[in-house]
Amino acid sequence: MTSSASVEAARLQPLVDPRSIAIYGASADLTRLGGMPVALLTERGFQGAIYPINPKYTEIAGLRCYPDIASLPAPADVIVIAVAAPEVVGVMRQAAARGIRAAVVFAAGFAEAGDSEGLALQAELVEVARELGMAVAGPNCMGFGNLDSHAYSTFTAIFRTVEPPAAPRDTGLVTQSGSICSAIYAAGRQLGVRFNVVINTGNEACVEFSEYLEYLADRPGTETLVGYIEGLRDGARFERVATRLRDEGRLLTLLKAGETDKGALAAASHTAALAGSGAVYRAMFERLCVVPAHDILHAADMAYLGRFRGRASGPRVAVLTISGAIGALLADAFTQSGIELPELSAPVREALREGIPRFGMVHNPVDFTGNIVNRHQFASQALRALFASGEVDFAVIYAPGFLIDRMAEGLAAVSSASGRLVAAISTGKVTTREALETAGVPVFDDTTRAVRALASLAHWHENRRRHAGTTRTGKPADAPAVARELVRETRLDGERAIDEHRAKHVLAAFGVPVAQERVAVSAGAAVEAARAIGYPVALKVLSADIAHKSEAGGVCLNLGDDAAVQAACAAVLSSVAERQPRARVAGVLVQKQEAPGTELLVGVVRDSVFGLVMTLGLGGVWAELFGDVVHAPLPVREDGVVTLLRRLKGWPLLDGFRGADPVDLAALTRAIACISDAACALADDVDELEINPLIARADGVVAVDALLRLTGEVAAGNAAPGMHETAQGQPA
Amino acid sequence: MTSSASVEAARLQPLVDPRSIAIYGASADLTRLGGMPVALLTERGFQGAIYPINPKYTEIAGLRCYPDIASLPAPADVIVIAVAAPEVVGVMRQAAARGIRAAVVFAAGFAEAGDSEGLALQAELVEVARELGMAVAGPNCMGFGNLDSHAYSTFTAIFRTVEPPAAPRDTGLVTQSGSICSAIYAAGRQLGVRFNVVINTGNEACVEFSEYLEYLADRPGTETLVGYIEGLRDGARFERVATRLRDEGRLLTLLKAGETDKGALAAASHTAALAGSGAVYRAMFERLCVVPAHDILHAADMAYLGRFRGRASGPRVAVLTISGAIGALLADAFTQSGIELPELSAPVREALREGIPRFGMVHNPVDFTGNIVNRHQFASQALRALFASGEVDFAVIYAPGFLIDRMAEGLAAVSSASGRLVAAISTGKVTTREALETAGVPVFDDTTRAVRALASLAHWHENRRRHAGTTRTGKPADAPAVARELVRETRLDGERAIDEHRAKHVLAAFGVPVAQERVAVSAGAAVEAARAIGYPVALKVLSADIAHKSEAGGVCLNLGDDAAVQAACAAVLSSVAERQPRARVAGVLVQKQEAPGTELLVGVVRDSVFGLVMTLGLGGVWAELFGDVVHAPLPVREDGVVTLLRRLKGWPLLDGFRGADPVDLAALTRAIACISDAACALADDVDELEINPLIARADGVVAVDALLRLTGEVAAGNAAPGMHETAQGQPA
Repeated sequence: MTSSASVEAARLQPLVDPRSIAIYGASADLTRLGGMPVALLTERGFQGAIYPINPKYTEIAGLRCYPDIASLPAPADVIVIAVAAPEVVGVMRQAAARGIRAAVVFAAGFAEAGDSEGLALQAELVEVARELGMAVAGPNCMGFGNLDSHAYSTFTAIFRTVEPPAAPRDTGLVTQSGSICSAIYAAGRQLGVRFNVVINTGNEACVEFSEYLEYLADRPGTETLVGYIEGLRDGARFERVATRLRDEGRLLTLLKAGETDKGALAAASHTAALAGSGAVYRAMFERLCVVPAHDILHAADMAYLGRFRGRASGPRVAVLTISGAIGALLADAFTQSGIELPELSAPVREALREGIPRFGMVHNPVDFTGNIVNRHQFASQALRALFASGEVDFAVIYAPGFLIDRMAEGLAAVSSASGRLVAAISTGKVTTREALETAGVPVFDDTTRAVRALASLAHWHENRRRHAGTTRTGKPADAPAVARELVRETRLDGERAIDEHRAKHVLAAFGVPVAQERVAVSAGAAVEAARAIGYPVALKVLSADIAHKSEAGGVCLNLGDDAAVQAACAAVLSSVAERQPRARVAGVLVQKQEAPGTELLVGVVRDSVFGLVMTLGLGGVWAELFGDVVHAPLPVREDGVVTLLRRLKGWPLLDGFRGADPVDLAALTRAIACISDAACALADDVDELEINPLIARADGVVAVDALLRLTGEVAAGNAAPGMHETAQGQPA
Repeated sequence: MTSSASVEAARLQPLVDPRSIAIYGASADLTRLGGMPVALLTERGFQGAIYPINPKYTEIAGLRCYPDIASLPAPADVIVIAVAAPEVVGVMRQAAARGIRAAVVFAAGFAEAGDSEGLALQAELVEVARELGMAVAGPNCMGFGNLDSHAYSTFTAIFRTVEPPAAPRDTGLVTQSGSICSAIYAAGRQLGVRFNVVINTGNEACVEFSEYLEYLADRPGTETLVGYIEGLRDGARFERVATRLRDEGRLLTLLKAGETDKGALAAASHTAALAGSGAVYRAMFERLCVVPAHDILHAADMAYLGRFRGRASGPRVAVLTISGAIGALLADAFTQSGIELPELSAPVREALREGIPRFGMVHNPVDFTGNIVNRHQFASQALRALFASGEVDFAVIYAPGFLIDRMAEGLAAVSSASGRLVAAISTGKVTTREALETAGVPVFDDTTRAVRALASLAHWHENRRRHAGTTRTGKPADAPAVARELVRETRLDGERAIDEHRAKHVLAAFGVPVAQERVAVSAGAAVEAARAIGYPVALKVLSADIAHKSEAGGVCLNLGDDAAVQAACAAVLSSVAERQPRARVAGVLVQKQEAPGTELLVGVVRDSVFGLVMTLGLGGVWAELFGDVVHAPLPVREDGVVTLLRRLKGWPLLDGFRGADPVDLAALTRAIACISDAACALADDVDELEINPLIARADGVVAVDALLRLTGEVAAGNAAPGMHETAQGQPA
């Protein structure tokens, strides 16, 4: 741990692991907000000092109650502040004066209210916390539950109604919502999950999600982490801690709200609209091997599976049942979750046939039939044969509870001997559950939940094989001088948008093949350019202010002769003048008419949390109507690009669909990697970069259109009308 | 009930509602197959006669045990046969001789084994059952559980370990799998579902699924039905009983295995490949308002919701919570399930603001915040305001258990007064559950399950509004003489496939606009035809044996002059001769080159269970790579067509995407309805009909290619080589 990390850990220790706790606004009614912490601390047996503070009482729950903070016998590690929002800051000041360095603030009505009153209260809280050097949790949070020390700074009843876990406690829970915190805790405890610390972060005015995550990762004994987020503020810190957990083989699962977000609809590039925040999070989670939870129960199930993550697993499952129908349901569900049920080889089928009657199935899913009741030992024999073959990565066995009980000893033995994951699913009570779990065999009582969780764990193993040890950092290539110069010029002009022609210059400097083209500022010059390039040509308006040229009537394709070019020039300029009168027009672009091919969209946007993220998809309606796009944080390398492209539903269109020639995949992946290089080398400057279309053919690829928007404050298209008229007049 | 229906009901009565039960192969070990029925019947208190039969015992569980069937004191209503497959038929004969008219056969090893031994055993069983006039359940079934009379003819332990339901029992369960039967029963009972009869149908050798369904529908008291199927044998009967349940407002939910089936890959038409059995079932279920269950728990949840189906619901939900985060999760889940959270009007928001603090939310989802604890009565006030506004169809409220308990009285009152569905979801125990349920308020303890089930119920209500009272039957239009004649001619030729040209003739006779075209049998004739039609033209090989002309090199487009037509003619014929040497070629088709437009695929296939089903999609890669197709059982009417087309992701391409002209929707829906008419009028003859593409433009639609294959046994493309060579010689 670095020295600064130690400082930060020390900062959170009084919040998460306090040795003494004061409760300001303590109540003698132990079901109330100010009473619940006192109830929990006393009933569960917290060993540190407890200081209820309320002038109305002299005693609460057998503890001495103090009239004010000043009269505390010693400075508590943390103070729970259970008063309304406007009073909070005053209490913080008194607490600091008494030497208290950390506070948990329950009150709502701060920034989450979204009104000026709430925003002002939160700004004041942040300011005062900084001034006092105080670590403040919340506001608008339900506080902390420490199941190791029974330090509770929370008002939620869940810790009272749900039995706390026994040691060894190895699972941390951090959420941005109190209700979801309680729900995951309750569901996890039903599965026997051994939580050590439970944190509800609330508004995160002073301490944000990833800092808590880091603290828990550093805290001895934490093997599994589970959480809920609406969004992250410190993407870099999150990436750091998630990378560490990934590389150490610890399991982090996050439920994220807002998965149906559609992104900013009014964005300039298609990429920005497609790379909605949900998609970017999913791409980051994949890279960081964070398991994305679908819902509360899935999050709880992954917390449960944390202790079984050390057993070998992967994308090939054997399903063993006593019911063909349940086998079919499990097969459907695994297949839909991306887990394969491989065909079994003849030797394995023969080995299975030894214990399976002729009306049973020796294919995968295996159907023992009800006959297994009379020879339950065969289940483990079958598993040994399956694992010995190397044809599957893990196995799932379905049977009624009483039968799982009979099989338990055998399953435990196979689990230990093979080191592979064997999971049991049953209808009805399994009395051997604990013994099975101790032997590394998780037990589920619903098929759907089991498949979802086991598939997630298998994907996590796969993901780790791909990504563990990799980082996004590393020095990007230097930007060629010409690229730096073009960006500098644009900056000097006080602009953010670089026009299409210059954008392609920048890309070409990084090795991206671009269409042959010339700028013309008159119809005559356009004809001259067309002749030099060779017919047929395309003609487009050149303007950094126009993101969607076709919609503005600014594009004419397949022009075959001089007359066509002249007519097109006039048509394009008059159409643009009519539809986008405020756009500044720098001329027209005469471009070699490219032969048709498969059109791709390659985009890069700057995500506010995670930085540069690439979006890949087939161009046009494919991406727009079908959302057939994939996302990846930058940089991407050539080998990674192929993996991404293969995930597109439209991948066959690149790979020789219906007898067509496949595109030049090497050229395509190289071009996309070059686009990644360009964005990374110019990372400080690039806000949006989009190549649409990048045409891929059997004979190579070519970028036909490009859009590059720089970071900064100057909004494009807001220039003075006078400039526009001058510029537009030139070529007509 | 018709007289024949009465006969059938009488046939099943001894199976489902026996007054006396004999158990052949009864065991004194009550945990064994032959012991379990005796245990259940005696322990649960069946009032009828129980006759264990086994020469090894004189008494089992206090009952007299008989040495053989002949010595029974009276003929039992039903005999449970608990012996191995080869002995079953002998027992059936003895039972029939003693006057027993119904049997439940447990043994496996019949047709489901898939080997010749099993098939022979099952054929014999069917034959003997027919000969004896005996109603036989199974084989390979776990039997029946009658919770009204406690008549159990089953070996499953679930009826022993799970508490049986109290009256009124209103829910029937019929499944094709014993394990899934047990699993749905167990999950349903956890929710308090009051099953009346539980049936596992097994191999359905003599009595099939829909007959059981009909019996349960006729049985007094059944309000809700739930089941599991792998497939149905009698589609017409199923349609009859499901239609009746739908129109009477009873709820039928089915879980179906094999949803990921991809259909027949080697099928002649694209339609056949796209209309996999899962898709056809889904289309039928929608029309019949059968709720499709995703998994076992969903099936159980729908059984639970059966008793609440009388409350008004629909596609607009109000979500009320004490947690913004849970509200967001619920909103995500409802939206993904096709249920809308409408924006609330200003008056409703004002009414909500009366009881919600400034940091709560008066938008949908509504966030009361934790403050509601202190004024829980406001929940019902808010619901009243929401329902009075008419802006939502039903409501869901989330709160911890203790809070739901406090709100219970108010929720019950709103539920009764409004007649609308109010559902509660909670974390933690709800002690008022029964009172809420009695008042019509279902209670869930998981958000995901709640949303899925409530969304299904809302869709069921919507579906009933659309479909109740409709039937597929009704006399189809007469086929025009020309269509009948073309079919007759093809039949006379001993063929099943009608060539493209004739298929379009048939369609045109029903009013479908088709491309202008002529048949030519020489290159010279092709040129003449092209001149008569007017350039440009397309040229295609004409052969009923070639379903995929492009793949065979049999198509040339955009031919501009005589020379091009001549060259194309030669190219097409030589290419076809090389790639499909066995195909008989009737000539070439010279066709007006149609202007481009949006290409659709319109197909009809004959499903073996449900008859003619239409598939609609955008042509080419859209359908093939993205599976963007919809299905509907025939007939479809013009208004129904629009509903179907709007479900396509590619719908915007028909509706004026990116400023393009919308297609002529009236002409398109008319053409599709005419295709439906054609298929229905020729229903006895049509096996597959596909128009691909049907080009839709702003100025109308036109069928450019068509494929029609007749019912019958003659396989296309299997003609003698001699014929092919003769035919192919003609045009070259």
